[in-house]
Amino acid sequence: MKQGLFLVVSAPSGAGKSSICQKMLELCPKLNFSISYTTRSPRPGEKDGKDYYFVSRENFIRRVGRGEFVEWVENFGNLYGTSRKTMEKHLAKGKDLLLDVEPRGAKKIKKVFKKGIFVFILPPSRADLMKRLKRRGHESKEVIKTRLAQAESELREISWYDYVIFNKDLDKAVEQLKAIYIAEKCRKAILAREIEAFMK
Amino acid sequence: MKQGLFLVVSAPSGAGKSSICQKMLELCPKLNFSISYTTRSPRPGEKDGKDYYFVSRENFIRRVGRGEFVEWVENFGNLYGTSRKTMEKHLAKGKDLLLDVEPRGAKKIKKVFKKGIFVFILPPSRADLMKRLKRRGHESKEVIKTRLAQAESELREISWYDYVIFNKDLDKAVEQLKAIYIAEKCRKAILAREIEAFMK
Repeated sequence: MKQGLFLVVSAPSGAGKSSICQKMLELCPKLNFSISYTTRSPRPGEKDGKDYYFVSRENFIRRVGRGEFVEWVENFGNLYGTSRKTMEKHLAKGKDLLLDVEPRGAKKIKKVFKKGIFVFILPPSRADLMKRLKRRGHESKEVIKTRLAQAESELREISWYDYVIFNKDLDKAVEQLKAIYIAEKCRKAILAREIEAFMK
Repeated sequence: MKQGLFLVVSAPSGAGKSSICQKMLELCPKLNFSISYTTRSPRPGEKDGKDYYFVSRENFIRRVGRGEFVEWVENFGNLYGTSRKTMEKHLAKGKDLLLDVEPRGAKKIKKVFKKGIFVFILPPSRADLMKRLKRRGHESKEVIKTRLAQAESELREISWYDYVIFNKDLDKAVEQLKAIYIAEKCRKAILAREIEAFMK
């Protein structure tokens, strides 16, 4: 059986990660999106079972108790978690997965699975990041302040990522993420079976 | 100063490497081709200073004596060498280089520079490789036999390469090589200066 790989994409909030992931999935039909669980309310346009599994806090905590999450975090009062079963099922079938996970969760996934490709998306500049964070109109000043502090702490996590994409232009950023995916599929280790078959 | 990277492409002869490299250079205008020195005669269409520097055996040996080559080999009576100066000059200027070098030479380059991205091109199947090697009409049976044996020995070198491309379809193979190049330009280590500037 061919081995599936997984691509974990992280970014400080406001770096344009969601748009990149969405376009990436459109371009790569063989790449499956790992749908996270969350207790936060759907934003306009978000669909249950597509963007997230939207569950109650009680439901989420029960899943935590059953060890269902490979990682979970609380972020501004909302819980987010990645299903271990979903990941294992896809990878065992040789399917590739795209995960949209913030750095703390990504670190946990790296620790548990001891593999994966970790990509950090950066906005064009720090000033731009600050501007984008402040522009998210639907939050209080307090929330924005905490968000800025969190972005700073998330930025420090870049140190253990494999790849970095500067999101100066959406199409270019998506092209780079796609290139990373294609390149990683050409890694000698991933192609071990095909190479062995060739050598016979 | 930005750091240049180099991409070394190898393949058993007959795997379609030259066509891939040529298309790759057309698609990536910022990628420079490292022109090798050789004592063999130009094939139809090959140009001095573009495909190779065609030099006399005496001239080549003088260059060997002056330590001009980072690697050189004798292959079917012809000498081939990679200029160390050309490589160093490009890399120091932050320019990226594509090298078309057979596995023995590639190994030497890896040893000397302790970096580089090494890509091995494979034909679709072993049977296909044999067929292509036999079809090269302009050589004697003896040469073909030696070529087959050499291809076998070159295939074993795949073990220390980073990436493998199966050349089933020229366009797809070129797309994969380009993806490897783009991805490697997104490596955190290569972007160290840009990331540092962002963090300030």
